[in-house]
Amino acid sequence: MSAPILAISRRTRRTPYTDRIEALGVKAYTVYNHMLLPTAFISPEEDYWHLRQHVQLWDVACERQVEINGPDAARLVQLMTPRNLSKVVVGQCAYAPLVDEKGGMINDPIILKLAEDRYWLSIADSDVLLWARGLAVGMGLDVAICEPDVSPLAVQGPKADDLMADVFGEDVRDIRFFRFKWLEFRGHPLLIARSGWSKQGGFEIYLDRSDMGEDLWDTIWEAGAQYEIRPGCPNLIERIEGALLSYGNDFTNDHNPLECGLGQYCDLDSEIDYLGKQALLAARDKGITRQFRGVSFEGEHCPSWRQAWPVLKGGQKVGEVMSVCRSPALDRNIAIAMMDKSAWEGGTEIEVETPEGRRRGMVCDLPFKVPPME
Amino acid sequence: MSAPILAISRRTRRTPYTDRIEALGVKAYTVYNHMLLPTAFISPEEDYWHLRQHVQLWDVACERQVEINGPDAARLVQLMTPRNLSKVVVGQCAYAPLVDEKGGMINDPIILKLAEDRYWLSIADSDVLLWARGLAVGMGLDVAICEPDVSPLAVQGPKADDLMADVFGEDVRDIRFFRFKWLEFRGHPLLIARSGWSKQGGFEIYLDRSDMGEDLWDTIWEAGAQYEIRPGCPNLIERIEGALLSYGNDFTNDHNPLECGLGQYCDLDSEIDYLGKQALLAARDKGITRQFRGVSFEGEHCPSWRQAWPVLKGGQKVGEVMSVCRSPALDRNIAIAMMDKSAWEGGTEIEVETPEGRRRGMVCDLPFKVPPME
Repeated sequence: MSAPILAISRRTRRTPYTDRIEALGVKAYTVYNHMLLPTAFISPEEDYWHLRQHVQLWDVACERQVEINGPDAARLVQLMTPRNLSKVVVGQCAYAPLVDEKGGMINDPIILKLAEDRYWLSIADSDVLLWARGLAVGMGLDVAICEPDVSPLAVQGPKADDLMADVFGEDVRDIRFFRFKWLEFRGHPLLIARSGWSKQGGFEIYLDRSDMGEDLWDTIWEAGAQYEIRPGCPNLIERIEGALLSYGNDFTNDHNPLECGLGQYCDLDSEIDYLGKQALLAARDKGITRQFRGVSFEGEHCPSWRQAWPVLKGGQKVGEVMSVCRSPALDRNIAIAMMDKSAWEGGTEIEVETPEGRRRGMVCDLPFKVPPME
Repeated sequence: MSAPILAISRRTRRTPYTDRIEALGVKAYTVYNHMLLPTAFISPEEDYWHLRQHVQLWDVACERQVEINGPDAARLVQLMTPRNLSKVVVGQCAYAPLVDEKGGMINDPIILKLAEDRYWLSIADSDVLLWARGLAVGMGLDVAICEPDVSPLAVQGPKADDLMADVFGEDVRDIRFFRFKWLEFRGHPLLIARSGWSKQGGFEIYLDRSDMGEDLWDTIWEAGAQYEIRPGCPNLIERIEGALLSYGNDFTNDHNPLECGLGQYCDLDSEIDYLGKQALLAARDKGITRQFRGVSFEGEHCPSWRQAWPVLKGGQKVGEVMSVCRSPALDRNIAIAMMDKSAWEGGTEIEVETPEGRRRGMVCDLPFKVPPME
C-alpha cells in the first residue's frame, strides 16, 4: 500500500507560501494549527545535511500568532506562564511554557513583546486563542485577543546571515539572539527575529501581509541562489539531536514543565502570580519522578515510529520513547524519551521495545553531542 | 507531481481503529482534532454510491468528547450555547452551535446529556476543551473538564439498522433519532446513539475503552459481510447534498449562527443566559445580510477546490463558495455558498469564479433535492 495522501480542504488552511512550496515539489505535509506545514522535500536525511551546510527557506506560517492587546494584556500573558516576564523588554522574544491551573502544559510558544500592552504568542499546535479568550471572558479582562494575518517565514542554516543581509541590509546582522527588529521590505516594515526551530542559526520573518507572501518568498529565493538555498522545513533529525521539544509529540497536557526539563522557565520563588503555581510548587516539593532524557540504541536502521515505545531496564518499563530517528551524523538511532528517575542517569543501560523487537541502548543527556560539519 | 502524503507522528494521533482502516487500504487522511480522520477509500464517488445503498463502518474517533462534569456543569454548558437546553433530557443528543461573547462560532458539537451534572460535547475541529477550561478557570466554576478515552465508531447507510440489530440485539431499533441507549458488548455497556454525519441513517457507537476497538470493529465487520459492508468516512458529496455544515470549511469564528442558518438553535427571546446573547440580539435587530445557500453551476467536471471562490452577479461579488463537489446523482457541480442578501433568493442567476474560469449557475435552497435510490 502506498502512504495515504493528505486530503486538503479549506479547513487545512493554505499559507501565503503554499503555491511556492508545491511548485518546488513538497513531498509531505502535516497539519499544524489547522494549517499546512511541509515536512519533507527531498528526504529527511538529505534535507538535514543541506540545512547544516547551507540555508533553507521554511514555510512556518502555521506558527500562528495569538495577539493579546489592551490594558490587561500584560496581566493575562503573565497569568498564562510560569516564566517571570517582568524583565522582558519590548523587542524581545521569550520562550515560555504555558500551563493550566493544574500545572499541565497547554503549549510552549515564543512570546514576542511588541509593546507594554501588546503581545504575540507564536504558538505550537493547540488552540491557545480559545484558552486565552476563555480566561479573558471568564475573568472579565480588558483585552482584545485575535489571530492576526501573520505568517512566519523562516530562513535557517549557517548562511542565513549573509543571505538576510543581502535582502534586508547589514542591520539584520545586529539582531541579537531572541530579539527582533522592524526592517523594511518594499517600504513595509516587517518584524524580523533571530530565532527559528533549528540549532543552525537564522531568522524568522513575521510577515503581516499575506498579499506580499509570494514577493517575499521570491526575493529571498532569488538572492539565495548563490548560497545554494533550498526549500526546507523543521527537520525531525536536526530537532531531536538539538532536543527541540514538540508539543503533542514529546509532551502533552499530561506533563508539567518541570518534567519537560523547563524548570529554568518556571519562577517558583518570587511573588509573581500565574495559573498552576501552587500545583508546580507541590510537584517540586514532592520531587519530580520523570523527565526527558536522550536515548541512543543499536540497529542498522530506525523502525518506523508512530506511537510511544516502552523503554525497559531489567525487563521493567522505566520510560517511553516520544520522538525517534536515525542520526546520520552519529550513525545511531536516537530518541527523546520520558524517563523514570530510577533510570534517568546518563549511561544507564536500557532496552527499547520497537515494533521490530528489543534493541539495546543507553541513556544520555540532551541535547545529543553531534560532531561539527567539516 | 504526485499529491503530498500526510506525515504521521504522535501529534497526529492514531485511533483504536487506525490499524484496521490501514489494512483495508485507506487512501487519504485529514487531521481533525489532532487525530487521523480517513477521507477516501475507493474514491469519493464510489464511496458515495455505496453509502447510499449499503452500510459503511466509519472511524470517526476524531469526534473527540469534551466531558464536563460537576455541580456547575449544566450552567457552563448552557453558557456556551444559544440553544435552550432546559428541556434536553438525559439520553438525548442536542446539536448545538457554540458561540463566543461576540456571537462568533466556536464549534458546533452534538451535546450528549449523560446525567443532570455530566455532559459530553462531541466536537468539530477546534480545541473546545481549552475554551471550556478557560471559561471555567476564569469564572471559578465547580466543574471537571477532560477529554475522556472515547472514540466514536459510526455505522452509516440504509442497512445500518439490520446490521446493528444483528450485533447488539433488536433493542437497537428502538433508539429514536438523536437519542442514545447503553447496550452491552462483551459485557461492557456502550453508549449507542442514532446519529451520524450523513443523511443515510445509522448509529454512532461511543466506545469508551480503546483496548476494545479492534474487537468491536472486527465484530461489526464480520456481521456486515451479508450487507456488503465497506469501510467509509464522512463523504464530501453526500454531506454537501445534505447540507451538513463543516466548521473550518463552511464557517469559522467570523460567522454567527444566524448567518449559518442555525437560527432554530438560538433562543433569543427567553430568559436563559449565554455568551454572545447580546451580540446575537443586535445582529438580529440589525438584520442578517449573508447566509448559506446552495449553488449549482455548469461544467463537465468540478475544478479542484482548496480556497473560497467568489460568486458573482453582474460582475459584482455577491458571495463565496465554501465547499464544492460534483454531484453524480444530480449530474451537476454543487456548492455550499455564503451569499449576500442581494443574491440569496432561490433562482438567482450567478457566476462562480473557479480556477478554470467563470461558470454560470443558480442559487437554490439547502439541502439539495437528490432523487432517491431506485
